[in-house]
Amino acid sequence: MRAYEGAPDGAMTTGKLITFEGGEGSGKSTQARQLAERLGAANISTIVTREPGGAPLAEKIRDLVLSDRPAAAVTELLLFAAARAEHIAVTIAPALGAGTWVVCDRYIDSSRVYQGDIGGIDKAFIRAIEQQTVTPWFPDLTLVLDVGAKVGMERAQARGGLTRFDAASLAQHEQVRQGFLDLAMAEKDRCVVLNGAEPEAEVAEAVWKAVTERLIATAG
Amino acid sequence: MRAYEGAPDGAMTTGKLITFEGGEGSGKSTQARQLAERLGAANISTIVTREPGGAPLAEKIRDLVLSDRPAAAVTELLLFAAARAEHIAVTIAPALGAGTWVVCDRYIDSSRVYQGDIGGIDKAFIRAIEQQTVTPWFPDLTLVLDVGAKVGMERAQARGGLTRFDAASLAQHEQVRQGFLDLAMAEKDRCVVLNGAEPEAEVAEAVWKAVTERLIATAG
Repeated sequence: MRAYEGAPDGAMTTGKLITFEGGEGSGKSTQARQLAERLGAANISTIVTREPGGAPLAEKIRDLVLSDRPAAAVTELLLFAAARAEHIAVTIAPALGAGTWVVCDRYIDSSRVYQGDIGGIDKAFIRAIEQQTVTPWFPDLTLVLDVGAKVGMERAQARGGLTRFDAASLAQHEQVRQGFLDLAMAEKDRCVVLNGAEPEAEVAEAVWKAVTERLIATAG
Repeated sequence: MRAYEGAPDGAMTTGKLITFEGGEGSGKSTQARQLAERLGAANISTIVTREPGGAPLAEKIRDLVLSDRPAAAVTELLLFAAARAEHIAVTIAPALGAGTWVVCDRYIDSSRVYQGDIGGIDKAFIRAIEQQTVTPWFPDLTLVLDVGAKVGMERAQARGGLTRFDAASLAQHEQVRQGFLDLAMAEKDRCVVLNGAEPEAEVAEAVWKAVTERLIATAG
């Protein structure tokens, strides 16, 4: 994370925040775990976490959203935003402040795509919420794992138990995919798109290359 | 509620939304119930509800907030806003649309005071959330029950089990009181301040007078 107003002295030694984004079945969770292990092996203190969740209250909010489908899209947006605020306060900010790197499975871009592109919530409102909850904990690097709708949904089905997000039609899955690609294009400094359809080990190599080039080579 | 875009034909026959606001121990719940009964006796179909809560998912959010104190004030704001969006979608909007009046124990002004004045959240952000969640379901009438901090806290204690909101110091209670008074002053067309320290029956008469003068005399 970049140094920010109010950061403790020596903020340049703060940890980095790396997020994985993409549709269902794109391999985010697997790649997040592998990246965290590889960073650890490189003697970089790292935690892996996920959204919605990543803190006790945030996990309870996750359970609520997944079990009781909200009646309004804005309810879902607000619940995810509340979970994120808690995740940041309890888990992400303390870790980064202690110099630990944080690898997170889904983050702000999922809200932008699922509640913005799909849910139809005013994007300026979504950004206003980010401003109040995420600032200054924006990702240093976001890895967008891109897979076609068919591959993604087949993988999600194969691992059993489609979450209700998987129940979206193939067409909606393509809309999600395009949403992430558009975001990555609009924020090239932060986002790297990787082909998530490739074998796991190859994706992991591409992830590591992006992380070393973007963050480790320039660190210190 | 005033007629709004998208309202069914004959929107002038829509129900009215009346909210009660004030600090702990000001008598809101008691007066809300009594007003609903009196409206019912006057052949006006009425429901009484409360915040946070008033819908199944919103009640679960209420339980979460009361049992797991959020780490950040903004988390609390977002959870209450999510509960309100759900309350409106599931309970308030359908009732008003069917011509039923809604009497609600706490609503937008509690967020403005507790998360704004006390929690220190940016008030423009609170209004932006209202814009996205409450519009067009703003109250037709808000009754602010005003009691001094000492009386309010003694009453809240006497009924047993201070909620965590009651644990606030007397000084904070006064700050809450002032917050409601300031709001009522700023929105005189919508708000009426009543002396909540008077005997219950007298407050009920004052409530009825306000409702009949403001809403019933002008209805139809």
